[in-house]
Amino acid sequence: MTLKVYLSGEIHTDWRDQIIAGSKGLDVSFSGPVTDHAASDDCGVKILGAEDQKYWHDHKGAMVNAILTRKGLNDADVVVVRFGDQYKQWNAAFDAGYAAALGKSLIILHGPDHQHALKEVDAAALAVASEPSQVVDILRYVLDGTLPA
Amino acid sequence: MTLKVYLSGEIHTDWRDQIIAGSKGLDVSFSGPVTDHAASDDCGVKILGAEDQKYWHDHKGAMVNAILTRKGLNDADVVVVRFGDQYKQWNAAFDAGYAAALGKSLIILHGPDHQHALKEVDAAALAVASEPSQVVDILRYVLDGTLPA
Amino acid sequence: MTLKVYLSGEIHTDWRDQIIAGSKGLDVSFSGPVTDHAASDDCGVKILGAEDQKYWHDHKGAMVNAILTRKGLNDADVVVVRFGDQYKQWNAAFDAGYAAALGKSLIILHGPDHQHALKEVDAAALAVASEPSQVVDILRYVLDGTLPA
Amino acid sequence: MTLKVYLSGEIHTDWRDQIIAGSKGLDVSFSGPVTDHAASDDCGVKILGAEDQKYWHDHKGAMVNAILTRKGLNDADVVVVRFGDQYKQWNAAFDAGYAAALGKSLIILHGPDHQHALKEVDAAALAVASEPSQVVDILRYVLDGTLPA
Amino acid sequence: MTLKVYLSGEIHTDWRDQIIAGSKGLDVSFSGPVTDHAASDDCGVKILGAEDQKYWHDHKGAMVNAILTRKGLNDADVVVVRFGDQYKQWNAAFDAGYAAALGKSLIILHGPDHQHALKEVDAAALAVASEPSQVVDILRYVLDGTLPA
Amino acid sequence: MTLKVYLSGEIHTDWRDQIIAGSKGLDVSFSGPVTDHAASDDCGVKILGAEDQKYWHDHKGAMVNAILTRKGLNDADVVVVRFGDQYKQWNAAFDAGYAAALGKSLIILHGPDHQHALKEVDAAALAVASEPSQVVDILRYVLDGTLPA
Amino acid sequence: MTLKVYLSGEIHTDWRDQIIAGSKGLDVSFSGPVTDHAASDDCGVKILGAEDQKYWHDHKGAMVNAILTRKGLNDADVVVVRFGDQYKQWNAAFDAGYAAALGKSLIILHGPDHQHALKEVDAAALAVASEPSQVVDILRYVLDGTLPA
Amino acid sequence: MTLKVYLSGEIHTDWRDQIIAGSKGLDVSFSGPVTDHAASDDCGVKILGAEDQKYWHDHKGAMVNAILTRKGLNDADVVVVRFGDQYKQWNAAFDAGYAAALGKSLIILHGPDHQHALKEVDAAALAVASEPSQVVDILRYVLDGTLPA
Repeated sequence: MTLKVYLSGEIHTDWRDQIIAGSKGLDVSFSGPVTDHAASDDCGVKILGAEDQKYWHDHKGAMVNAILTRKGLNDADVVVVRFGDQYKQWNAAFDAGYAAALGKSLIILHGPDHQHALKEVDAAALAVASEPSQVVDILRYVLDGTLPA
Repeated sequence: MTLKVYLSGEIHTDWRDQIIAGSKGLDVSFSGPVTDHAASDDCGVKILGAEDQKYWHDHKGAMVNAILTRKGLNDADVVVVRFGDQYKQWNAAFDAGYAAALGKSLIILHGPDHQHALKEVDAAALAVASEPSQVVDILRYVLDGTLPA
Repeated sequence: MTLKVYLSGEIHTDWRDQIIAGSKGLDVSFSGPVTDHAASDDCGVKILGAEDQKYWHDHKGAMVNAILTRKGLNDADVVVVRFGDQYKQWNAAFDAGYAAALGKSLIILHGPDHQHALKEVDAAALAVASEPSQVVDILRYVLDGTLPA
Repeated sequence: MTLKVYLSGEIHTDWRDQIIAGSKGLDVSFSGPVTDHAASDDCGVKILGAEDQKYWHDHKGAMVNAILTRKGLNDADVVVVRFGDQYKQWNAAFDAGYAAALGKSLIILHGPDHQHALKEVDAAALAVASEPSQVVDILRYVLDGTLPA
Repeated sequence: MTLKVYLSGEIHTDWRDQIIAGSKGLDVSFSGPVTDHAASDDCGVKILGAEDQKYWHDHKGAMVNAILTRKGLNDADVVVVRFGDQYKQWNAAFDAGYAAALGKSLIILHGPDHQHALKEVDAAALAVASEPSQVVDILRYVLDGTLPA
Repeated sequence: MTLKVYLSGEIHTDWRDQIIAGSKGLDVSFSGPVTDHAASDDCGVKILGAEDQKYWHDHKGAMVNAILTRKGLNDADVVVVRFGDQYKQWNAAFDAGYAAALGKSLIILHGPDHQHALKEVDAAALAVASEPSQVVDILRYVLDGTLPA
Repeated sequence: MTLKVYLSGEIHTDWRDQIIAGSKGLDVSFSGPVTDHAASDDCGVKILGAEDQKYWHDHKGAMVNAILTRKGLNDADVVVVRFGDQYKQWNAAFDAGYAAALGKSLIILHGPDHQHALKEVDAAALAVASEPSQVVDILRYVLDGTLPA
Repeated sequence: MTLKVYLSGEIHTDWRDQIIAGSKGLDVSFSGPVTDHAASDDCGVKILGAEDQKYWHDHKGAMVNAILTRKGLNDADVVVVRFGDQYKQWNAAFDAGYAAALGKSLIILHGPDHQHALKEVDAAALAVASEPSQVVDILRYVLDGTLPA
């Protein structure tokens, strides 16, 4: 059994790398968005032509990125959504809602400060973790049945 | 043709009242979350029993509120999601993602400051408005075929 | 907004009557199984002909009852499942699983003794109550936004 | 043609091993829950942190286990649900209902004593067996077209 | 609760009239195909223009009739399929398969002679009756909870 | 039984009026797009603000119109798509594809000149008519079982 | 691209062998029911225990066979249904209806005598063939784009 | 991650070859319709027998081609639809609508002349390109995260 896991949300810390490294040896297939911030912002205009208005510049990029996001969310068994300390991160919450409506198993990853603000998102999750290593522990338990010592 | 419209998001300004008042005479059926902030936060423990931990206090409330939110989103033809100036509003973005995955027609309502941060949410919408009156104009056009003078 | 509520599970106490009576004045449409135990057990053979084997006797009845159960579960916005003190009540847990897979909002109603044994069922619910009056409180909150004093 | 079979229910006897051993040589891919009772009960708190209340202790574990159960049920062609002699086993009946709503082919496995109490569950099944070897016989027939001598 | 019942199959006896008459007073909404054999055969060419080939003559009619059949099957809670003594009646079996795939509650109505030949169709049903009055008894039980004396 | 019919396609002749007038007395509920060409083209910018680029001007309008189109197509039992003599009419073919994927009953209405070019669209239809009166004849047959004299 | 093809219907001639042999070299994965008539009739009682009543004997077998049929129909891209000269073959028409409701591409295979009686079934098909070699020609065209000389 | 891409629309220029050649080294699996115009037009009658009427000649071909088109559209993650300079191309717009209703990620490829006429189709797309190389750039970005220099 291969578990398909989509890693959504924050792109400014190395939480994805931690989870991927920690899951070494587990039968997991990871996917996620493009994490190069500049490329992600500009992909629309770089490929499809410049826009005068910032709104349409952003729009074109968000649409191209949606090709990847939808593929990842639609194919996933488990969607992990990480909320970091900075930024609005509405795209992360949007992905969580999208995944919830598709009936995906949601794991939300965030620090204690966001607890109240994320209560509706957490309420749709099967697990709420604060550390990437906990996500690894869940994946290991689901795939191997073993718990951390 | 009755249009079922769910009004999601910000609960601290009167944007819902403006839309409902402006839509007088149109065949629209509105629904939305409980907008009494205290009741919304405490409904879980008030009904189902107190919790020592703030997390579970919040969780119980978010779950009870989800009964209403899901009913509203599932039944809606159009989901309007309002992002205000304050707070994280991750529940609003979650609702938008949930509605998008269900294929609902999304209208996002926010001021120009949020444009960049909401680009992924806006990209899933059929209309992005900045004023409640524009939402009314859309509903009138959809139902009556008439445009503002 | 009419809320369609299916009342599944225990048929030997008056919990359904309590909920229906308590919900007077709310815009709720209730449905549920046939609660006449003898009729429920014998409906198959009474209508479609006797069976020599107890297994097929039971089977025919369960199938006829499924016409009603499926209609109720499929149409419901909210499914309340009551576990009483007696009997195996596997049909109640089956209904809960069926409703969960359909994405219905689940309310589970049971006493504290069943807490551990029902943990997987409770984990699929948006509310876990111990008293019928709490179900009424939830319905009132969802429909009217008011909480118990 | 690989047949994906999820083995749900009782975790205290070796019925899963019997079916897997008996199916040697058949193109079947089996999955199932974690069958280490202690690990299954404690996985939530072991990974995500301790809880004071037994209810939330149980809840966290049930949620983490649901990641595995949902993956198994969603992917399966055939769901076998075993009811043993002991315990309430509401999770087994819940899985059966969940699988039924997804349109999975259900095989229910139980002794004659449970016949009446399981009639609604059996009524949703394509086969009701009393011995693990009968499940193997079904899998062999479905995959190879051969019947027991 | 209104039960929507589609009456599929044989059009040469008065079984539909018997069921409709017997259900007087019950909250049932019946639908069914056009039962005028000549109109049903010729509707395509009468409306859309003559065809030289019998095959296309038949085809055009079958397509126009499918507008009604699909509407009836899609909307129904319960689909009753009657197999009479004559003709191939493949359209009846087709409707049964279509309804089964949609998860509709199936009632099959046929005499004892067809038992073996209809075993796969019966196996998808929640009730197999031999008389129209039994269908009425089922509808009454489902809607009122009362059994025949 | 009310039949919900969406009338898609050409907006420059009175075919909708002919069908609606001809269906007088039948239990049909019609819907369709805004047929005021100028309003339809400009609704986006009139409501949501002007655009410098013609592409985004068009885009905003198409998106607002999609709110109405989707509602009509999603709710419809029958979708009639009319191809006239002029223009590209790709939106008509798009609606036909959209409706086909949703499993709606399609009626295509066009003159003989378009026969070859519309063969893939016609192949998805249950009826291909050349005159609005034929659509009325189909609706009457489906609802009343009567054929034109 | 592998095309998954389920071969439903008649089990007394070698039409399946002809299609499989003719498709040699094409990227097709075939499946189908158990074609040993005696095994197919008796699989239920042989595995799950004898029945006194012929009806339940048949029923148990039909249910076990349904495990295979559903797997084949659910997984298929194309469903070929063959109607032979003999027997009622209601299971073939049932499979056709089931496949149609799932949106599968249907090919119906029958001789000219059955044309009128199968008109509703043919109307749901993308191709109606009279010879197994035509089915092979279709599969080759779909996979390789080549037509018979 | 393999991306499944269906290339729909124009068959008279080498745009498919350009995209496939440009995507060399990317993990993409391409599919598309039969692009031999004569074969595509005549496949129905060549395989299933001649027709006197041009309409049925076309119809049989369109139906056989639909087996391939549906398989391609149903399996795809991304559907690229190319509108060329000539012909009505209603089948291209039909495919776009079909794909949109299935929630596929749509890329529309056309020159500036078609901008206004395609506005409803473009409005359903995640990207609107004018050159095949832009489609390659999108696929590379989605799969590798790299943008054109």
